[in-house]
Amino acid sequence: MALNSLGRFVPEVFNGIKRTPYNSAALLTPGGLEYARPVKIVRPGEKKLLSGLREAIIASGLKDGMTIATHHHLRNGDNILNQVVKEIDALGIRNITIASSSVHPVHAEIIPYIKKGVITSLECGVNGPVGEAASKGELDCPIIVRSHGGRARSMMTGEVVVDVAFIGAPCCDEYGNMNGYFGPSACGSLGYSHVDARYAKTVVAVTDNLVPYPVCPVSIPQTCVDFVVQVESLGDPKKIVSTTTRVTKDPIGLMIAKYAAEVIRASGLLKNGFSFQTGAGGTSLAVADNVRRMMLEEKIRGSFGSGGITGYFVDMLEEGLFETLLDVQCFDLRAVESISKNMCHQEISADTYANPFNCGAVVNRLDAVILGATEVDVDFNVNVNTESNGYLLHNTGGHTDTAAGAKLAIIVAPSIRGRLPIILDKVTTVTTPGENIDVIVTERGIAVNSKHEDLKKELIKAKIPVKDIHELRKEITQITGVPRPVEFTDDIIALVEYRDGSIIDTVRRVKE
Amino acid sequence: MALNSLGRFVPEVFNGIKRTPYNSAALLTPGGLEYARPVKIVRPGEKKLLSGLREAIIASGLKDGMTIATHHHLRNGDNILNQVVKEIDALGIRNITIASSSVHPVHAEIIPYIKKGVITSLECGVNGPVGEAASKGELDCPIIVRSHGGRARSMMTGEVVVDVAFIGAPCCDEYGNMNGYFGPSACGSLGYSHVDARYAKTVVAVTDNLVPYPVCPVSIPQTCVDFVVQVESLGDPKKIVSTTTRVTKDPIGLMIAKYAAEVIRASGLLKNGFSFQTGAGGTSLAVADNVRRMMLEEKIRGSFGSGGITGYFVDMLEEGLFETLLDVQCFDLRAVESISKNMCHQEISADTYANPFNCGAVVNRLDAVILGATEVDVDFNVNVNTESNGYLLHNTGGHTDTAAGAKLAIIVAPSIRGRLPIILDKVTTVTTPGENIDVIVTERGIAVNSKHEDLKKELIKAKIPVKDIHELRKEITQITGVPRPVEFTDDIIALVEYRDGSIIDTVRRVKE
Repeated sequence: MALNSLGRFVPEVFNGIKRTPYNSAALLTPGGLEYARPVKIVRPGEKKLLSGLREAIIASGLKDGMTIATHHHLRNGDNILNQVVKEIDALGIRNITIASSSVHPVHAEIIPYIKKGVITSLECGVNGPVGEAASKGELDCPIIVRSHGGRARSMMTGEVVVDVAFIGAPCCDEYGNMNGYFGPSACGSLGYSHVDARYAKTVVAVTDNLVPYPVCPVSIPQTCVDFVVQVESLGDPKKIVSTTTRVTKDPIGLMIAKYAAEVIRASGLLKNGFSFQTGAGGTSLAVADNVRRMMLEEKIRGSFGSGGITGYFVDMLEEGLFETLLDVQCFDLRAVESISKNMCHQEISADTYANPFNCGAVVNRLDAVILGATEVDVDFNVNVNTESNGYLLHNTGGHTDTAAGAKLAIIVAPSIRGRLPIILDKVTTVTTPGENIDVIVTERGIAVNSKHEDLKKELIKAKIPVKDIHELRKEITQITGVPRPVEFTDDIIALVEYRDGSIIDTVRRVKE
Repeated sequence: MALNSLGRFVPEVFNGIKRTPYNSAALLTPGGLEYARPVKIVRPGEKKLLSGLREAIIASGLKDGMTIATHHHLRNGDNILNQVVKEIDALGIRNITIASSSVHPVHAEIIPYIKKGVITSLECGVNGPVGEAASKGELDCPIIVRSHGGRARSMMTGEVVVDVAFIGAPCCDEYGNMNGYFGPSACGSLGYSHVDARYAKTVVAVTDNLVPYPVCPVSIPQTCVDFVVQVESLGDPKKIVSTTTRVTKDPIGLMIAKYAAEVIRASGLLKNGFSFQTGAGGTSLAVADNVRRMMLEEKIRGSFGSGGITGYFVDMLEEGLFETLLDVQCFDLRAVESISKNMCHQEISADTYANPFNCGAVVNRLDAVILGATEVDVDFNVNVNTESNGYLLHNTGGHTDTAAGAKLAIIVAPSIRGRLPIILDKVTTVTTPGENIDVIVTERGIAVNSKHEDLKKELIKAKIPVKDIHELRKEITQITGVPRPVEFTDDIIALVEYRDGSIIDTVRRVKE
């Protein structure tokens, strides 16, 4: 074990691979070459359409010990990963690694296949039951948690080599051109899977909506797709995208949002050319609502909104508050509709969005980002992976990437959640290093990272309740009491990678 | 020297590299991995904007013996290649290879730099004076002629490694996002340079139209661009795109076009889903005009038009005769305007367009293509590279790629050009093998490749003047006489690569 710069013990070798302890948010300097897959050929007249997933798995040459991937644009409606794992099992293939962009609660169905040895490793973060089972020590299946940008990096550098990617394609032709815009399983942007299309050794398009050649517009081109299969359904459309995402009505959330917007204004970033990202949570959207009103009042024309896109950002685009949206995933139906018809609403790959190892991702150009947390600590470190019970329940998403890139990374969180304080002495798990977090906003006060003394002064001038983070922690803890720490065993069930691949923390098995 | 399957002697080693003689149009089977460039990093806050071309050349680390590339979307208006070569010379760098997508008459300015040893090799086909000077033996500078798809392949496989690509960017931001749609040097699609953006070790965006971040829409993303430089002008806008391309008024051209359209109808391909490509020549457009009228009359809805796109194809898109246009280069202003605003007019890379070594390029899906020729022969081999004087004056373009991919590759040419017969016993240079050519249309008659007996019968039924190619050759030669063959020395000045990299022919120095 090695001690990283945040004081976390991390293994030097995990799952047989040598690891680098996290040292600083400044990013490791990459060495070596991009991963190179074998040169392919599909001669004129050759067909790609196969009868189904089983035939595609056979055609792909998938064997014991190989790695597969899917994307999570179908979210908790996804049916592909479960189907693929069942077919792999039926073919007697074992010891498979899953390197999907994320795993959701719906994928609890793979747990028996992990126990059976069909799946033996997860090169991806997890949401829900798979992580819970791992945290309880029920699974013999090491997990590597990566940010969206970190995943793109890991495939670009060859840290993760995907042998077969199964890409859910809501609109696809027989030659593999696809987009996510149309069809019963429309999900909008296919941003995460662009990386798979580029780096996976074999790419299988899986569709429930085969349309005449050629798909228009093309998100992922035929040149990257080896095989096409039709399935009955990609999943449950009701769970693929929200019909709509809404601003919170909770008064605490609204107060937090108001403060966060004031922080953005006080930062001086809210001027022409402003760029902005929020998630789809109710408080995040309430921040966007406040920012939108400020922009309208002050006649500010922003440059771009990025990340997961909601109807709220579509409105801002259409109102002229942004020049363009850079969309790695659509959060609701209005975003899906917009991306299908507005050239200024642009699909971007996870590489373009957040990969730290290219000529500069979109996150590098962000002014402000609004992010959540399950816990923060007095060093501004943020946890979004584990919950207060110590279970690994959430993937990192773009949290670490946007925090690193944005000029102003703001955490919004209620001071107390489920009777537990949000600010701790030390977070259970470090997802995002405090070095990259600028401001923490709660309804009880706002803590500013000490590197931003000027911003702090501006906020005090604007009569925003700035508090020292230790003071804020103390004030909250006086109400909640100091929670009893979760007890962990020594067994490491997951590594949390920083975006450059260094190990920022581990997740251990919870002592039951 | 080795004899290839077309009876052409080709060198086994050229410019120090081992070569494979052409054997068949069926394509070599690729082996090995895609070319991999070093992993890059641009940290948040780092800038890319440099003061000019000289600073960019220095920053790129360009050294003696390296390879540079530009694209030819600026055609004969391009000012970048000449400027870059002058700056390279001024920096004292020597022995540089140019691997641009094409070289045009305007680039005659580089000839003194070839003579001086600044440029010592051309990994690209040439149009005009550079080829003429080489054909006359004035240059010590081996040339490799490739098709558009062959160039993409050569960069994908690492046959050609571009150290520094200078990409002319008509609309660009300081972080390197670019498109070709807007600005004084707007050229439309940047299709050829997508390959450079992906594979060149260092990418420099060169612009005369720096716009606020981010460019919208993005054709080539920031993630691929290392440096950005502003120059006074990318070139002469009047020569970058035609203001308009027009249907021929020449009666011979019109007769040829009518026959060609009849051939397409007789082939049975002209039905819903029809896909089509023509060049921008007056006769080609006249074929499109005939086909368009047939489609309107018979209420046929095609799938796509591809290749270099003219206003004529834009009209067909807007009339609903195509679902989409797949555009690797815009030929006129109407095409430029259309691609900037119509989501069904899609920019594609040269890789997607024509690379034989990926999961299937667009050319593989073409029904019919109309192509030109400087010469054809009784084996249906086509020459587009050399003229009757033996000079290397033309690049291959998409000729070989589309002929290989399309179900019906039709050559349109007047039977006599400059008092010389178009059909010879043997073409001076084989650009495209006869195996891939289906029909040759002249005003004096139509020759059908013997592999299409059914089509021949259909044409005879439709009272189209089908003639045996030997008979047609004889008939034409009775008018023109048999031309005195050009005499060549043994010196090979250029290799002509088939799209898979095998050597289909050589070009030798003309005996003066």
